[in-house]
Amino acid sequence: MHVDLFFTPHQTDELALREKTVVVIDVLRASTTIITALSNGAREIIPVATVESAVKISGNLFGGVILLGGERNGKMVDGFDLGNSPLEYTAERVKGKAVIFSTTNGSLAIVKARYARELFVCGFVNVGTVAEALWRTPRDFTIVCAGSDGMLSMEDSVCAGMLISRVGAGGTAEPELSDGGLVARTLHRTFGRGILKMIRSSDHGRHLAEIGFGEDLKYCAALDTLPVLPLLEGDVIKLRSEVEKKVTVDNSQES
Amino acid sequence: MHVDLFFTPHQTDELALREKTVVVIDVLRASTTIITALSNGAREIIPVATVESAVKISGNLFGGVILLGGERNGKMVDGFDLGNSPLEYTAERVKGKAVIFSTTNGSLAIVKARYARELFVCGFVNVGTVAEALWRTPRDFTIVCAGSDGMLSMEDSVCAGMLISRVGAGGTAEPELSDGGLVARTLHRTFGRGILKMIRSSDHGRHLAEIGFGEDLKYCAALDTLPVLPLLEGDVIKLRSEVEKKVTVDNSQES
Repeated sequence: MHVDLFFTPHQTDELALREKTVVVIDVLRASTTIITALSNGAREIIPVATVESAVKISGNLFGGVILLGGERNGKMVDGFDLGNSPLEYTAERVKGKAVIFSTTNGSLAIVKARYARELFVCGFVNVGTVAEALWRTPRDFTIVCAGSDGMLSMEDSVCAGMLISRVGAGGTAEPELSDGGLVARTLHRTFGRGILKMIRSSDHGRHLAEIGFGEDLKYCAALDTLPVLPLLEGDVIKLRSEVEKKVTVDNSQES
Repeated sequence: MHVDLFFTPHQTDELALREKTVVVIDVLRASTTIITALSNGAREIIPVATVESAVKISGNLFGGVILLGGERNGKMVDGFDLGNSPLEYTAERVKGKAVIFSTTNGSLAIVKARYARELFVCGFVNVGTVAEALWRTPRDFTIVCAGSDGMLSMEDSVCAGMLISRVGAGGTAEPELSDGGLVARTLHRTFGRGILKMIRSSDHGRHLAEIGFGEDLKYCAALDTLPVLPLLEGDVIKLRSEVEKKVTVDNSQES
């Protein structure tokens, strides 16, 4: 099982990720928000790269209850229903709804990985679940961290290292690591015992605290609080159980 | 003193690096080869991004003795005089000559940083000298690692961490680090006591050993064996002492 790692989506492109198993990590906060929304009953997340696309798509969709969510520079976009704080994505707000979602860094990572064979969304809140999906059916995978405007993010890198460590601990063999994977595992070993402290002192963590989202840091640092597996199916992100139900229904219709 | 760090040149561009103090690190092997060539008396290095540019420029230059050097995928380019092994750049080959130089990753980093206010070339072989230049006259700086085809390289990252640690040790205050700088310093603390071992097990180190450049690894892992300071002046890289001599001459002509 070979693991590659990109610390920012700027380092890769659609072609390089095509047909791969990809894990997208944006701890602060797109991953954590997507995982939260789906855990709280959102029907699906529709990731888009730009605010313009989000608005355009929302105008073209009928028949469902649609919310617009996301941020630019950490703050809610004018005209959107929700920002990028996971705490906003309560069951009351999102249950049964589709969320068109666009953020500065996380959405770019997901959009670049859109032709992946399978794409999982991972944060500290579900890292154990993603790891288990990977070690139970071992295959090569590529981690794409969202980073921050082209710079490596400490919190994404440590989460990537934790994912790698847990895949190794769960399975029968240690994953083969490229330099990037080895860096992430080293960071996890150095900073993994104090996730919240690490997040609070990270570049992006300090920025979020400054603009009033200090509570989000604690939420995003919690380990395995939301044991779900969001994955991309076509153009939308759903929980695996939902995707499997649909596949079962499709199969039964065919037979 | 604030330190930023890009682990690959793909994460940044000319505009972001404009007017900055930039340190380019490509341990295997462009940095080490440039430092070696200049130490061995090469007059100047002319970094270019593409093989086509190298050939074109070499055809336009008169009045000097010109060599073409560099590689693609680790190997010498057809029609070039020299590859990218520092061991080739002996005084017999390079003394008094200008070298037009193009490599897969290192040249891209230098070309992206071409509008920097000042640009230093750094490897393990001169890391102490670059560190001293930075702590003696403290200023913010940005490290651009060459990486490998858009992926982080362990050896560049550890060298960056060593540079940061030495700048901190030499000066009166610890540099302020972004997440990237903190990652590099962590890697240096983890792997810095066994540079050659780290290089031999890195992705690029293993590749070079496989294609017959195992000897280069030992040469590139040596600490402070070439205490010189290559810096970009206009479009060419020279040693600082040469640049200073020229500045002195220019000043005396003006006065």
